[in-house]
Amino acid sequence: MHRTKVKVAEDALDANTTIANANRGDFDRAGVSVVNFMSAPGAGKTTLLERVLAELDVRAGVLEGDVQGSADADRISALHLPVVQLNTDAGFGGECHLDANMVRSALGDLPLGELDLLVIENVGNLVCPAEFRVGEDARVMVSAVTEGEDKPLKYPLMFRTCELVLINKIDLLEHLEFDLDRFLYNLDAVHPGVERMLVSARTGEGTEAFRAWLEGVAKRAPAAA
Amino acid sequence: MHRTKVKVAEDALDANTTIANANRGDFDRAGVSVVNFMSAPGAGKTTLLERVLAELDVRAGVLEGDVQGSADADRISALHLPVVQLNTDAGFGGECHLDANMVRSALGDLPLGELDLLVIENVGNLVCPAEFRVGEDARVMVSAVTEGEDKPLKYPLMFRTCELVLINKIDLLEHLEFDLDRFLYNLDAVHPGVERMLVSARTGEGTEAFRAWLEGVAKRAPAAA
Repeated sequence: MHRTKVKVAEDALDANTTIANANRGDFDRAGVSVVNFMSAPGAGKTTLLERVLAELDVRAGVLEGDVQGSADADRISALHLPVVQLNTDAGFGGECHLDANMVRSALGDLPLGELDLLVIENVGNLVCPAEFRVGEDARVMVSAVTEGEDKPLKYPLMFRTCELVLINKIDLLEHLEFDLDRFLYNLDAVHPGVERMLVSARTGEGTEAFRAWLEGVAKRAPAAA
Repeated sequence: MHRTKVKVAEDALDANTTIANANRGDFDRAGVSVVNFMSAPGAGKTTLLERVLAELDVRAGVLEGDVQGSADADRISALHLPVVQLNTDAGFGGECHLDANMVRSALGDLPLGELDLLVIENVGNLVCPAEFRVGEDARVMVSAVTEGEDKPLKYPLMFRTCELVLINKIDLLEHLEFDLDRFLYNLDAVHPGVERMLVSARTGEGTEAFRAWLEGVAKRAPAAA
């Protein structure tokens, strides 16, 4: 007797994982390391990239994710790096994150074989971007001190899933009531001991360390096949 | 000959609209006006509510939406107002917005018949909250000057869907390179002439106007049935 076996997908994110793995394979073959760069809107991701990418001693490219517009890609283009803008507004009202398939749709427009490092600047959002792997080697997030001390407790998955947390806009600390010790306590509560750097994209303070960190990630990639 | 007619839903948001309309009916019967209050993470929604709700001359309640935790509800409770915390982390990794059904699940815990105004503080996110009606009368958003001038262009649906935009943290303007004229130009590009107020939740500047505006919304509701 013939029986049809139906396998139920265990995870709504299964399709995403499959495509993320395909991206991962392409990145490995090209010998490129990939950073998924995330934050809330206006935390300073693009300004931080402007600070560090020009001086990088590895060959970098950028994939910019936004609901609409190409303002960030235009800013990065001025650094004479390969950059592709992905707009997510084809989804209903605009997707709030990049997923593996969106990233995959852009890979053909990037010269992967000529890069050591690809930075994927995700849509500004502290929730969903953390739920979708895109084939990255590392996740980095930016939390601006203007956003308050409670953010790790309110968006724990994002803080837990990153291996580096950049605490940005420290030039404004003297004008805020932000309690840095309390923020760090909350950060350690959701991701004990995670690497963190105090930076100011505006003044450049602390951004050297981030640049060196990115160069280190770039050197993790296997040699191109 | 018998034929089964299959009607295909035109809109993935149909179910949400149906439930939003049911919420709307409940609000009307109770004679309560409802504000959907939205922003990016850390823009200052809760601090603004702390500023204005204590002095309000109408009876207000608050529904707090967060991925995790009850910090905001705890803060509002100190004002001796009815408050209910909705956590969205039952979704995969946490839902990034409130939808009509989540709001509906909380209505039984609120004394709607004793309220003139219900403020629903949405999850901090500039994308998806704008896509889900929850049965509200009005939408208000907060955009902090620390987030930069480009936000209306990058998150146009959110700015377009609100009838009031609060431009918060103006006490920091002197310490930022934020170009207010440019922000307002961008705002008018996506939502021409939308009502806007310059406020500082920290100093209280401009928040009187927001309080009066909320009182005006509360008086829009029909008398309780």
